[in-house]
Amino acid sequence: MRALYWNGGDLRFVPLFSAPTTDSAALIKIHLAGICATDLQIFHGYMGFTGIPGHEFVGSVQAGPREIIGKRVVGEINFGCGECDLCRRDLDRHCTSRRVMGILNAHGAFAEYVSVPLKNIHLVPENLSDEEAVFVEPLAAAFEILTQVQAKPQDDVLVLGDGKLGNLCAQVLQLAGTNVTAVGKYPDKLALLDNIGVRTLLLEKWQPHAYDIVVEATGSAAGLELALSAVRPRGTLVLKSTIAGKHQVSLAPVVINEINVIGSRCGPFPRALAALAAKQISVTPSIEKIYNLNDGVLAVAHAGKPGARKILLRP
Amino acid sequence: MRALYWNGGDLRFVPLFSAPTTDSAALIKIHLAGICATDLQIFHGYMGFTGIPGHEFVGSVQAGPREIIGKRVVGEINFGCGECDLCRRDLDRHCTSRRVMGILNAHGAFAEYVSVPLKNIHLVPENLSDEEAVFVEPLAAAFEILTQVQAKPQDDVLVLGDGKLGNLCAQVLQLAGTNVTAVGKYPDKLALLDNIGVRTLLLEKWQPHAYDIVVEATGSAAGLELALSAVRPRGTLVLKSTIAGKHQVSLAPVVINEINVIGSRCGPFPRALAALAAKQISVTPSIEKIYNLNDGVLAVAHAGKPGARKILLRP
Repeated sequence: MRALYWNGGDLRFVPLFSAPTTDSAALIKIHLAGICATDLQIFHGYMGFTGIPGHEFVGSVQAGPREIIGKRVVGEINFGCGECDLCRRDLDRHCTSRRVMGILNAHGAFAEYVSVPLKNIHLVPENLSDEEAVFVEPLAAAFEILTQVQAKPQDDVLVLGDGKLGNLCAQVLQLAGTNVTAVGKYPDKLALLDNIGVRTLLLEKWQPHAYDIVVEATGSAAGLELALSAVRPRGTLVLKSTIAGKHQVSLAPVVINEINVIGSRCGPFPRALAALAAKQISVTPSIEKIYNLNDGVLAVAHAGKPGARKILLRP
Repeated sequence: MRALYWNGGDLRFVPLFSAPTTDSAALIKIHLAGICATDLQIFHGYMGFTGIPGHEFVGSVQAGPREIIGKRVVGEINFGCGECDLCRRDLDRHCTSRRVMGILNAHGAFAEYVSVPLKNIHLVPENLSDEEAVFVEPLAAAFEILTQVQAKPQDDVLVLGDGKLGNLCAQVLQLAGTNVTAVGKYPDKLALLDNIGVRTLLLEKWQPHAYDIVVEATGSAAGLELALSAVRPRGTLVLKSTIAGKHQVSLAPVVINEINVIGSRCGPFPRALAALAAKQISVTPSIEKIYNLNDGVLAVAHAGKPGARKILLRP
């Protein structure tokens, strides 16, 4: 099959990669895959991954149990061992011996086919297009915030970062009834939120204010400092970005202001699918360009440009 | 009056400092004051404080409302404005225009007298000695953890740091019924906890394990790294140490393991007084030496030595 391959130093298009095996898994033919900030981090050394990257996808089942053959599906990306304490508590995304699609010891979705354990698969409702369904994984990650934080309707919420994930976090928190302000650097990206009624502000116009909840979705050390300064005493800071490497940071404000810092990663697929099916979340205006997989190296370069919106790959 | 004075570069004993004023406050004659890690941080530049340091004390009221004259008291250290939103929500310790005794724009307790707002004062039960009551402030800070974290009896808890605050945190969490392990560098300090039934371990013998709750009370960047590595996925890390300056730290584990990092500072005085009065917490064995205030500079040097236990000052 055709695939992109990251060898730890270079990303290459490989026209004849061996297709994945399918024991206790479904073989999925990829319709669309999304390039996200974590993929770009991987190409800077994050997780030390080598293999086929990609963990946002929608596809259809080519091999697996008869009842799902041909069905459109999306897939959760953490492959737990299924036997440890964490897996038994439905926390397989935290299983210490897990593999993670396109991130840790498992090939990903920047290919014609991907192999996904059956329990990770979710059917896609018919009223969702492929272009919508490919956003289920990052949207689930945004909904994860609501499983971790008691967001109340009167809460003042700041979302820092107008990227793909920041956009979804702002929409999810607006859906939860909070007073969201999204801050970013790019007028055209903020316009995506303006157009659906989310209050936005250019970073250069931002005035210090004490928010009940701040979501850090910039993926930069500077964003983290700003986020720490914007949380009210005893407020909550949600970290959505994984950043490769260490950075200089003072955690004294966390202690002095008794801030609750919550790391937040993958989230509930069913909630994301339901919200998309109910048209509660707008995703397709974020798409900047769809590349053919053969041009995947170009697509990744495009995704890495400052200000780029969502780049998708179609095998 | 006699006092210690920190001018931003030197700590000096001053034999004739002007006594504090008492408008809407009580004038308290200090019986004992405690030197804590935050004081030592101040002498390394923390908060940019200048003035009389010291915020742990027990004393007796010399001037103030008639009904409390002569009574033994302890005092909360944050002096809020009393009028802002935070003060009205009983969060005056987070008032943005607060003064903090011996730490921010208010003279402290390393002196013969200190002035404390009436609302900050708590009477000391008769069955508490001065040597016990001087621990109320740090013990309240340890109890603060229980106001922020749902500690359940079956929880595995790690307390990192066998210093004064680590000792009290370990005792408070043991009192809450959790399975506490306290890890430190000093056998004689760990023995204080061993003697009252808290499980302890020398740092060099510590084996990686995933704890439900980790309390970081070492005050070092290395302690923070270790603490991050010891929290189970979706577990809680309580930061009790304020460290001056920035340090290199990778927050990726917070996101990947969805850790809840909670900054924790000052706590409930009534709870600490009640626990001491009920003899639920052991404090006096931690006292290493009581210095006369006149020898305060020596006392601070002693408190700063690695392995030093609690040093007190008596005017």
